[in-house]
Amino acid sequence: MVDVAIIGAGQTKYGNHQLGMKGMWAEAAVNAFDSVDKDFQPNQIDEAYIGSVAFGGGQLGNTAALLTEHTGMQGKPVRRVENACASSGFALRDAWMAIKSGQADVVIAGGIEKMNDLTPERKRFWLGVSGDTEWERLAGLTFPGTYALMARRYFHEFDSTHDDLVNISVKNHYHGLDNEVAHIRKDVSFDKAKNGFMVADPLTLYDCCPTSDGASCVILAADHVVSQFTEDPVWIKSSAAASDYLALHDRPSITQLMATQKAAKRAYSMAGISAEDVDIAEVHDCFTIAELFATEDLGFTERGTGGHFARENRGRRNEGTTCINPSGGLKSKGHPLGATGTGQTVEIFKQLRNEVESTRQVRDANIGLSHNVGGSGATCSIHVYGRDRD
Amino acid sequence: MVDVAIIGAGQTKYGNHQLGMKGMWAEAAVNAFDSVDKDFQPNQIDEAYIGSVAFGGGQLGNTAALLTEHTGMQGKPVRRVENACASSGFALRDAWMAIKSGQADVVIAGGIEKMNDLTPERKRFWLGVSGDTEWERLAGLTFPGTYALMARRYFHEFDSTHDDLVNISVKNHYHGLDNEVAHIRKDVSFDKAKNGFMVADPLTLYDCCPTSDGASCVILAADHVVSQFTEDPVWIKSSAAASDYLALHDRPSITQLMATQKAAKRAYSMAGISAEDVDIAEVHDCFTIAELFATEDLGFTERGTGGHFARENRGRRNEGTTCINPSGGLKSKGHPLGATGTGQTVEIFKQLRNEVESTRQVRDANIGLSHNVGGSGATCSIHVYGRDRD
Repeated sequence: MVDVAIIGAGQTKYGNHQLGMKGMWAEAAVNAFDSVDKDFQPNQIDEAYIGSVAFGGGQLGNTAALLTEHTGMQGKPVRRVENACASSGFALRDAWMAIKSGQADVVIAGGIEKMNDLTPERKRFWLGVSGDTEWERLAGLTFPGTYALMARRYFHEFDSTHDDLVNISVKNHYHGLDNEVAHIRKDVSFDKAKNGFMVADPLTLYDCCPTSDGASCVILAADHVVSQFTEDPVWIKSSAAASDYLALHDRPSITQLMATQKAAKRAYSMAGISAEDVDIAEVHDCFTIAELFATEDLGFTERGTGGHFARENRGRRNEGTTCINPSGGLKSKGHPLGATGTGQTVEIFKQLRNEVESTRQVRDANIGLSHNVGGSGATCSIHVYGRDRD
Repeated sequence: MVDVAIIGAGQTKYGNHQLGMKGMWAEAAVNAFDSVDKDFQPNQIDEAYIGSVAFGGGQLGNTAALLTEHTGMQGKPVRRVENACASSGFALRDAWMAIKSGQADVVIAGGIEKMNDLTPERKRFWLGVSGDTEWERLAGLTFPGTYALMARRYFHEFDSTHDDLVNISVKNHYHGLDNEVAHIRKDVSFDKAKNGFMVADPLTLYDCCPTSDGASCVILAADHVVSQFTEDPVWIKSSAAASDYLALHDRPSITQLMATQKAAKRAYSMAGISAEDVDIAEVHDCFTIAELFATEDLGFTERGTGGHFARENRGRRNEGTTCINPSGGLKSKGHPLGATGTGQTVEIFKQLRNEVESTRQVRDANIGLSHNVGGSGATCSIHVYGRDRD
């Protein structure tokens, strides 16, 4: 079976963009093309997968064709993949399978979202529909409210308080401080994060990711063509995904994401590693409680000990055991829904190749992981990356 | 490389449904499960791909997780695929590649659309965004208007008149008359179709497909597990896809779809056949002129002779050379956007297995083809099917 490598990766800065959908996509795509070490032409791409949720606030259609035609991929098979906030994590998975299938040698996977030209009501709508509509959204539950319920229950079941979430927020802002593509670059103190504006009790503004615009993309290649493009690829050692009940009330427990646990088990098994082998992980911290869950569900710490992991700073860059969210995560780097999944891959690609800003480079990182979640855990994709092919 | 077969296929009736998204999906999925000859359980499915454009008028999100969880596929990797009206044609392609990749043995590909609870304005919106927005939709061009421009140019360039389109409409209504899942089951005379209410000159009501609700799905299996489920599979002999410029003015010609031509060339080559070998073809006749183009672009007749093909009834069931749209096509069977692609496959599966209503069974059909188009030709997927594996 063919192995799959990443030969290039690029993105826009995340934030409040003046650029529209086509402009943002072009910037991310050209950055990815330019990152390929040897000569690369976009018409060498055989197939394209683009993740997006709100496709320009719902004003543009047929977006995959629209976005690829003016970035040199005219005529290629293209499609949009939508899975709420896990859209480009699944675009990456499907791109990986396209190469595995033998039908394509070079494939692009990307994601894009334009949120900041929407009215506040439309922003809330596009976030809200990622969770359950019939039992949650239409009953008035907001997306922060959903995660607030999960946090409250977690504090009830385990030895943890909001202070642990504050620690996660402080760490992610610290990690993102020097990240040139991050949306929120602020040195945030424990006191400031602890006493932030209340959004959905117990989650304050500092527990919630911002609403970002942005685009990201990665270029994948089959093992037999990799050396045409680079001598320094990052290999995708595994791809796994799973789903869960959309509405919280259908799940046996709301203090863990079963989709993450299932996908992680498969991803580690396929890559031939265990959680301890992971040096850096970009995890889906749409809210700080989501990162706490992820550290448990991905096996970096035992169930019920995510609070300890956070308060002992075990996820901190070059200090802890596994660096969690070296980019700053969704909290600091930002969360342009459909762009987030492949944006995580861009960070892992650059970290493993020692190409990020020197002040935030993780030392001796060989194995990376990305973890992209849709809704409140209804869908999840996980990828494991390595410097070595085997 | 693993070969891929269809082991089951089912759909709802197309039309104005009382059922919502979940109900329609359940009906299509259960019909597909029940169509499998031997014992089949939905938890045997490894991966799911669901095509949808308007996802319940934009009121429901995370639809792939939502739809699969209550049809026995809890926990599986699922995603929505969106490519305008070609959404489920690409869902099928990606499902096919998932099996080819060795990552899955049993995969479901389906599609769904709920159009008829939308206001007329929202219906127009969801159809309009499938074409170009910046240069066409926002300038006032409707989707029927787009195809009307293409028809007028075709009549200017070649030996053809609106009467040829009338013939296509009459044929498709005739084909769909006894189809129990068809939306419009009417015996339509040449005079009636010729003198229909004008929608966008020269296209009358009888040149335009209806706005339908519906869902469809097909179950695919890898060669090494097929015999667990059936002794009578239909093999997918090839899958190919392509794209084109979204806006008409960017294309060198608006009287042909280059995406169809590119994909057809690859599909025939991979299947080891030529156009003459195709016995039945479900083609994307959102407007009658689109079927005329398809007969040329798919190679059933030479460029410029699509009018002759239509007026000589060469696409008529058990009379012509290749039966075009045995189901009645989008014109008569209906067009629930995201459901249309895999709905075409349902028809081919049943025709090749001699399982449709006896009055509309195509005799001695061994090779089938489905042709699904997004927008006015911006995306296209083509699949070739056969009774024999090789």
